[in-house]
Amino acid sequence: MELDFDTAVFDKEYIEVADHREAIVRGGRHLLPLLPAAFTGVDQIGVIGWGPQGAAQAQNLRDSLGDAVRVKVGLREGSASLDEARDVGFTEDTGTLGEMFDVIAESDLVILLISDAAQAELYPRIFETLKPGATLGLSHGFLHGHLSNVGADFPPHVDVIAVCPKGMGRSVRALYVQGAEVNGAGINASFAVHQDVTGRATERALGWAVGLGAPYVFQTTLRSEYVSDITGERAILLGAVHGIVESLYRRYTDQGMSRAEAFTNSVESVTGPISGIISHEGIKAVHDSLSAADREVFRTAYNAAYPVGAEIVQEIYDEVASGNEVRSVVLAGRRLPAYPMGKIDQAEMWLVGADVRARRDGTPAPLNPFTAGVYCGVMMAQIDVLWRAGHPYSEIANESVIESVDSLNPYMHARGVAYMVDNCSVTARLGSRKWAPRFDYLLAQAAYPPIDAKQEIDGTPFASFLAHPVHAVLATCAGLRPSVDIFVD
Amino acid sequence: MELDFDTAVFDKEYIEVADHREAIVRGGRHLLPLLPAAFTGVDQIGVIGWGPQGAAQAQNLRDSLGDAVRVKVGLREGSASLDEARDVGFTEDTGTLGEMFDVIAESDLVILLISDAAQAELYPRIFETLKPGATLGLSHGFLHGHLSNVGADFPPHVDVIAVCPKGMGRSVRALYVQGAEVNGAGINASFAVHQDVTGRATERALGWAVGLGAPYVFQTTLRSEYVSDITGERAILLGAVHGIVESLYRRYTDQGMSRAEAFTNSVESVTGPISGIISHEGIKAVHDSLSAADREVFRTAYNAAYPVGAEIVQEIYDEVASGNEVRSVVLAGRRLPAYPMGKIDQAEMWLVGADVRARRDGTPAPLNPFTAGVYCGVMMAQIDVLWRAGHPYSEIANESVIESVDSLNPYMHARGVAYMVDNCSVTARLGSRKWAPRFDYLLAQAAYPPIDAKQEIDGTPFASFLAHPVHAVLATCAGLRPSVDIFVD
Repeated sequence: MELDFDTAVFDKEYIEVADHREAIVRGGRHLLPLLPAAFTGVDQIGVIGWGPQGAAQAQNLRDSLGDAVRVKVGLREGSASLDEARDVGFTEDTGTLGEMFDVIAESDLVILLISDAAQAELYPRIFETLKPGATLGLSHGFLHGHLSNVGADFPPHVDVIAVCPKGMGRSVRALYVQGAEVNGAGINASFAVHQDVTGRATERALGWAVGLGAPYVFQTTLRSEYVSDITGERAILLGAVHGIVESLYRRYTDQGMSRAEAFTNSVESVTGPISGIISHEGIKAVHDSLSAADREVFRTAYNAAYPVGAEIVQEIYDEVASGNEVRSVVLAGRRLPAYPMGKIDQAEMWLVGADVRARRDGTPAPLNPFTAGVYCGVMMAQIDVLWRAGHPYSEIANESVIESVDSLNPYMHARGVAYMVDNCSVTARLGSRKWAPRFDYLLAQAAYPPIDAKQEIDGTPFASFLAHPVHAVLATCAGLRPSVDIFVD
Repeated sequence: MELDFDTAVFDKEYIEVADHREAIVRGGRHLLPLLPAAFTGVDQIGVIGWGPQGAAQAQNLRDSLGDAVRVKVGLREGSASLDEARDVGFTEDTGTLGEMFDVIAESDLVILLISDAAQAELYPRIFETLKPGATLGLSHGFLHGHLSNVGADFPPHVDVIAVCPKGMGRSVRALYVQGAEVNGAGINASFAVHQDVTGRATERALGWAVGLGAPYVFQTTLRSEYVSDITGERAILLGAVHGIVESLYRRYTDQGMSRAEAFTNSVESVTGPISGIISHEGIKAVHDSLSAADREVFRTAYNAAYPVGAEIVQEIYDEVASGNEVRSVVLAGRRLPAYPMGKIDQAEMWLVGADVRARRDGTPAPLNPFTAGVYCGVMMAQIDVLWRAGHPYSEIANESVIESVDSLNPYMHARGVAYMVDNCSVTARLGSRKWAPRFDYLLAQAAYPPIDAKQEIDGTPFASFLAHPVHAVLATCAGLRPSVDIFVD
């Protein structure tokens, strides 16, 4: 996919990613004085919705913009979130809190952060309410997918842009707050310009991303964004990592480890040393850091897990690209009143995990080479599925690696799987519940038995691993990484 | 759904099912002499495809029809199944084996039993090849669902009928063979008349069903058939029962049972005493046969499992009714060359199971009341989902209960889960792999933890169980049941 953009407000630079170069904007606190220029013509930004993204983005933008542009939150009447918004200073009295359709009608930039299912339900009225020449901002291409499914389109008289932080809403806020002291701390974001009737769409998108605190901003399209995003969260970001650690915990207890040891060697190993190494040094460094004997274990596990990852991630990708997964989310949204989502951390291993966390004494978790091989194998499989489909390399790196180790796994590390999954969007929570069990079953059915039976395992996956061009992409991205790690309690 | 039909060849009778009556035809060997009249105008029946249904139906129809109507098998050139067809006497020399499109062009009744994915791929050429006034016969409404998805339709110049045995192809043949000595042994079938240009469509459908050896034949529509069928196989028939027994095996080993005991109390309990009682006396009889203490265990398990079953079966139903699941199968068919389906019985419990089966000494497996409560709870949940959606009661009973205990579970009993699942259609095999893990995870996450934590569990599900009108439906169906049980080795 060849993309490029022009900006008169920010400095565009090119980064070298494998055999490509991609145009980006590097963010940072020092750019905040440029925001009024980026938002020329915007007197009010309406942030609609108060989910994790809505709460984070409204606060970050308000903090970044000061008095330059009003940030007003729009919620439906009687919303349970009204008090939460008031508690952090968005109030009717100050003109920064109102009924959602009123706020949509008034705002020059409308950032639509209600749930995907609500967008699918309410878009006709929202489109009617937007004023001509306004900019509609999305943080996810889901609505574009839904409109394609139902044969509809965005209204022609508005800009349509997206700024998509590659991390959950809580991280978007937490790292922004940490960034008050560490310039550049934040969550990377992609942006897309889908319609530009004002001629200002690109500047507004970049200003929005910089205002959120993104360390760097890369370009994509609405479709590329939602296909990779919905795939990623169902795979390595949430669903796959959940399925992987459940399958490993069971495997390790079956092999005779105590329950606490099994938890430490599965979950803690992923969220601790494996995520830490990947975050700072890349995926290949996980392998390179192992002893010769452990590399052998890693290699076997990698070769066995990669094909399972490739099979399911390709299935997920096809389901998303075909529109099926978007339709499923809409259907699931209609069932939620009758069948609300239950807790995913009530089974034994997660109770054990709470105990393991309570007993932490500072000893680092072991870098279990089998766990590492399985996790890296599935992660690389996702990278290859997205790579073959032609996504921008920055998108692949963020959606498959950086969001995982820098934004999401730290939540599982802090309080278990539900704390990670259920701090994400409804779409992500549904998708993680749907696909995690598939990874678990297929690993247990197809990846582990040939290892236990000491069968020959095809070495092709690992043979491609060490020389994979993604390592260079990740190295480039690491150069853009803020120096601070997220802190989650 | 109100349905009725007229037949001049067979005896139609009405059965009382709960508050409804349904028109049926009771089958049997004594009706075979009526087949030439039913097939008036049909000189040749072409059976296209040699999957489990194709092989079974071609042989049953040939045996039933003798010299009255030629049964000719059509396969694509170079098909790996040509030799199998020749081995049982369908040969080019005798004019009973040919290239599929040639056979389609020649035949007056074309029974299309190639895989669903192949139907989705080849239907334009098949439709062009059918001669005007021919009857297109399906054993599944899948193609109707696919045509709806892509905005196409059947050609107007042919009959479109369906006869859908409510059991896998192997059972259709096995029980027919047993029926040579026990009149009425066979697999129940539904039939649908979707288009009737010849005026003979109903007689042909009934003749086809009777020729297959169906003990009784009930009416449905193409859409009602495929929605209930695809739902059922993903739920209690294959996917749910697989997920249930995996979750129970793990639970029982975690609780300290030996692996063999856990297998006996999960799989063997379902495929042995529970299926046996349901088959002969209905679902309620499982509960009634328990001691007071065991009834308490059953009740708790039932109340905890029913909501999980309702949630997932409703999701499956919505996915099927929306067209998503049909689209998924078509997409999966395109991935199969790169990612062939793997074995589902390689993990520990199924290896234990092989050992348990090898050591069988005639001792009946225990009727584990917890296992029974979970299994019956999910089965009843499926019944309620189909019931609310308005399916014919005979369809509900066959798709949720009879096919399960009389046709499918006996295969799991004989050789494990793969022998049951992988003797079914590709559509069913894909669906079972997709949904089994979901049942497992949700049972482990939502049904079992409140039991273990001794929390209060809502008693509504069981409160509706004993007086459920499905018991009367099953009693009526039991009256139509042949006296022979399937024998699977």
